[in-house]
Amino acid sequence: MKRIFITEAINKVGEEVLLKGWVNSRRNMGKIAFIDLRDKTGLVQVVLVPAELDEVSREAMPKIRPEFVLAVTGKVQARKPGNENKDLASGTIEILASKLEIINEAETPPFEIDNEERQASEELRLKYRYLDLRHERMARNIKLRSDVIRYVIDYLVDHNFTYIQTPMLSKSTPEGARDYLVPSRVHQGKFFALPQSPQQYKQLLMVAGVERYFQIAPCFRDEDARADRSPGEFYQIDMEMSFMEQDEVLDLTEKMFTSMVKKLFPEKHLTFEPWPRLKHADVVKKYGTDKPDLRKDKENLNELAFAWVVDFPLFNKQTAEDFFHGSGKSQWAPSHHMFTRPKEEDLPLLETDPGKVHSYQHDLVLNGLEVGGGSLRIHDPKVQEKVWDLIGFTIEQKQQFAHLIEAFKYGVPPHGGIAPGLDRLVSILAGEKNIREVIAFPLMGDVRDPLMDAPSEVTKEQLEELGLVYRSK
Amino acid sequence: MKRIFITEAINKVGEEVLLKGWVNSRRNMGKIAFIDLRDKTGLVQVVLVPAELDEVSREAMPKIRPEFVLAVTGKVQARKPGNENKDLASGTIEILASKLEIINEAETPPFEIDNEERQASEELRLKYRYLDLRHERMARNIKLRSDVIRYVIDYLVDHNFTYIQTPMLSKSTPEGARDYLVPSRVHQGKFFALPQSPQQYKQLLMVAGVERYFQIAPCFRDEDARADRSPGEFYQIDMEMSFMEQDEVLDLTEKMFTSMVKKLFPEKHLTFEPWPRLKHADVVKKYGTDKPDLRKDKENLNELAFAWVVDFPLFNKQTAEDFFHGSGKSQWAPSHHMFTRPKEEDLPLLETDPGKVHSYQHDLVLNGLEVGGGSLRIHDPKVQEKVWDLIGFTIEQKQQFAHLIEAFKYGVPPHGGIAPGLDRLVSILAGEKNIREVIAFPLMGDVRDPLMDAPSEVTKEQLEELGLVYRSK
Repeated sequence: MKRIFITEAINKVGEEVLLKGWVNSRRNMGKIAFIDLRDKTGLVQVVLVPAELDEVSREAMPKIRPEFVLAVTGKVQARKPGNENKDLASGTIEILASKLEIINEAETPPFEIDNEERQASEELRLKYRYLDLRHERMARNIKLRSDVIRYVIDYLVDHNFTYIQTPMLSKSTPEGARDYLVPSRVHQGKFFALPQSPQQYKQLLMVAGVERYFQIAPCFRDEDARADRSPGEFYQIDMEMSFMEQDEVLDLTEKMFTSMVKKLFPEKHLTFEPWPRLKHADVVKKYGTDKPDLRKDKENLNELAFAWVVDFPLFNKQTAEDFFHGSGKSQWAPSHHMFTRPKEEDLPLLETDPGKVHSYQHDLVLNGLEVGGGSLRIHDPKVQEKVWDLIGFTIEQKQQFAHLIEAFKYGVPPHGGIAPGLDRLVSILAGEKNIREVIAFPLMGDVRDPLMDAPSEVTKEQLEELGLVYRSK
Repeated sequence: MKRIFITEAINKVGEEVLLKGWVNSRRNMGKIAFIDLRDKTGLVQVVLVPAELDEVSREAMPKIRPEFVLAVTGKVQARKPGNENKDLASGTIEILASKLEIINEAETPPFEIDNEERQASEELRLKYRYLDLRHERMARNIKLRSDVIRYVIDYLVDHNFTYIQTPMLSKSTPEGARDYLVPSRVHQGKFFALPQSPQQYKQLLMVAGVERYFQIAPCFRDEDARADRSPGEFYQIDMEMSFMEQDEVLDLTEKMFTSMVKKLFPEKHLTFEPWPRLKHADVVKKYGTDKPDLRKDKENLNELAFAWVVDFPLFNKQTAEDFFHGSGKSQWAPSHHMFTRPKEEDLPLLETDPGKVHSYQHDLVLNGLEVGGGSLRIHDPKVQEKVWDLIGFTIEQKQQFAHLIEAFKYGVPPHGGIAPGLDRLVSILAGEKNIREVIAFPLMGDVRDPLMDAPSEVTKEQLEELGLVYRSK
C-alpha cells in the first residue's frame, strides 16, 4: 500500500490507509492505547486495540514511546459525535490500527515536543534544533516562510521581474558594515568578501538592461548582534527597477504585499489601504521616531499597519562608528547608503548646505519596525563623486567603485529599488518577537552555532594552503 | 503618459505610446533615420522623420548613437505588407516618433552589442559583463534560468515541499572537496566554512520531520576549475525526502523535469518517456562511461536524452587526491558521498568484500553529462560508523559529525534525495557548451572576477580585527 499524508486520510472514512510519522503522544486506557501520530501535514488519533492487531504489531505495541517513527496501517473511522477534536484538522476521524511497524526508536528528547512550554534555553533549543523544529509552532513558522518566498517569486516573475543570482564570492568595499572575508587559496594575500547586499550587482544589472531584477538574496554583515537581527547572515527580497519613479516602486511593492497578506493571511487585516506615505520630518516630529507603530489597537496581533516613510535627509552627522562609511572623521554619513539619489531640486545644496539635502530614500515600516529600505540611485558620476567627497572617501576608497562609474558611461537607465528583509517580515507575520524563530538554523547572539559547533578550529593543512597564520596574542 | 514595454505596443496600432530603452542600431536614409529600440521585452523599429518631431527632438536626432538611453513618444503603425520583419516579435509594427528624449548618452562599448560575433575574449566579456548581458543570447539565457527557477519552486511547493534556507556560515567538515573558510572575528582562531552542499542540514531537516525539503542552494567548493564547472560557487536544486523509496524519488524528479520541458521548452523533445533506469555495471560495460549520451541524433540540439544510472558500487578505490574523503591512505573512497546507504542485501559484504557492496546512489544523466546525483542516506549509526572506518576516518574526523549521529537517536525517518545542478541543467537547455554562459556574474577559470577585481587586497585594519597575518613566502 502507498503511504498517504494524514490530511489526505480525512476524506477516506471506511478505507484502509497506510500512514507514517512520529508518535506525538501516547495515552493508555486499560488494554487499549491511543496514539497521536504526527507527520508533515498534522496529527491524527490512532486507536490500538490488541484484538485488532496482528501478532507482530501486538508485540510492538507496549514498546511505543513518544518520537518513535511508525508505519501504521488501519481503517479510517469517523469519530463518534461529541468525540471530535476541534483542535485537529483531522479531528473528525481516527485510525483503527490493524498493523504497526516501528521504523525507528527514539530516546527521550532533551525537551518535550508535544507540550512546548519554552522551558528550554535558546542554547539547548539550537543545539537540538532538529527536535525544536518538530514543535508545531516552529514547523508552522518554517512553512509560512516557504509560502511567503513562493508567493513573492510568483508575483514578481508575473510582473516581468527576472530572478538573478549574484555572486557570494565578491569584493570587499567600504559599504556600510563590516565584511566577512574569504581568503583566496589561488591568489594568496587576497580575499573575497561575502556580499553585505547585492547593491552593486543589481545596479550593474540595470546597466545591463535587465530593467526588473529580483532575488531572495543572502546577505552577510559581521556586526555585533542586535535584538531584532540575527547575527551573520540574513535574507532580503532584493528588487531593482529601471525607468520607474519612486511612487511606482512603492506602488508595486505595496500591491505585492497587500495581495500576499490577503491570500496567505486571511485572518489579518490591514490598518491602511492604501498605505500612508509620510514625510520623514513630519514622522519624527509627531512620533519621535522614524518607525512609528500606527496600529489602532496595539494589542491586536492580527493588525498590520504598513506605512511608507519618504523625504529623508540624504545625510546624517557622521559618528566614530561610521568607519565603514568613510573616514569616520568627515562631517556626513549617508542616511540610507552612498548610492542614494538626492532630490534634483536640492542638488545645489550639496555645495552649500549638505545637511539640508533630501533624497529619494523610502523606508517600509510595519507595526513599528522597519521591514525594508530602498531608494532611487545616483546614476550621474559627478553626483556620486560629490557624495563620496562629503562622506570623506579617499581616492583609494573611490577607486574600489571604479567599475560602477565606468559602467555608467555606457547608457545607464534611471533606476532604484527596495529590499524588504525576509526574516523580519516573516517574523511579524508569524507573530514572533524573536527573528530567530523563523530561521531554520540561526546563529546564537554570540555568533556561534551550538548544533554544528561552528565556527570551529580547522586543520594545520587547511591554513597552510591559504598561507595564513594567527598572530600570537 | 505611462511608459509601456515594447511587446505591449504590438496590439496598439493607431495609438500613441511612450517607450523607453536603448538604441540597438541606427540606419540613416537621407533625412529619415531608423532606430531599433531595445528594452527588456525586445526590439522595435522607430522611424525618425524630422517633420514629425518637435524642435527639441529634432535637435537631439543627429546625436543619437548605439546604446544611448532614449524615451520615445510616437504612434504605433502597422508596417506595410512586405515590410514586416519576421525576426522581431514586434516585426508587424513600427513607431513613428513625435518626441525623442535622450535620457543618457553612451560611449562606444568595447565590443558590439547588436552584432555578437563572440569576437571578445572571456576576460573582456566578464570585465564588461553589464554590456555582455545586453547581447540577445545572454539576456535570453538569464531569463531562461529565472523561468526554470520559478517552475521548480512552484512544482515542488505544489508537491508538499517546503523551501528552507540553510546556513552559509557553516562548519568545516571533511566532506569531499576543499572548503572555503571564513575567519571568525568574534571567536578568533576559529573559522566558519561555506557549505559544499547543505548535506548535513537537509538530513537534520528530515530528523526534524520536514519530510520534503528543497532549496535553490548556493554551494561552494574551492576546487581547481574544470571545463564543465564554474569555479567557486554553483547552485543545486537541493531536494530531500523522507519515507520514500528510491524509485519514488526518481519518479518525482522525472515528472518535474518532464513537465518543465514541455511547458518551458516546447521546441525540445524527450528521447525517452519514461526515462531508462540503467544499472551502473551495464552502462559502463556497454558505453565505457557512466554518463552515456543516449541521443538518437547527437547533432540535434533539441533532443533531450535523460537517463537514470543506479546500482552504483558504494566505494571506489581511494587515490591520493581523495584527501578530503579520508586519510588518502585508506583503500576505499565513497563513490557518491559518505552518507550514501548501502543496499540491505550487501551489508554483510561491508565486513568481507567492501568493493562489492552496491548502494542506493542515483545519477541523472542528460545528453552525456551528469546533471544531478543523489542517494538514499544511511540512518543507522552503526552502518555510518562502518563506512567511516572503511574510508579511513580518524576518531577526530568522526567526531566532527557527532551531531548527526546524536540526531539519529531521536527518531530518524528513512530518507534520501537528489541535487540536480542548476547551472549545468540550464546550460544544456539553453544549448550552451560553457556553463558560464548561464551565470550572470561568473568567476573566470582562474577564480578571479575581472569586473569587481575580486579577490582583492584588504586593509590592515580588516586583517587586524581578524587576528590574521600572512606568513612570508
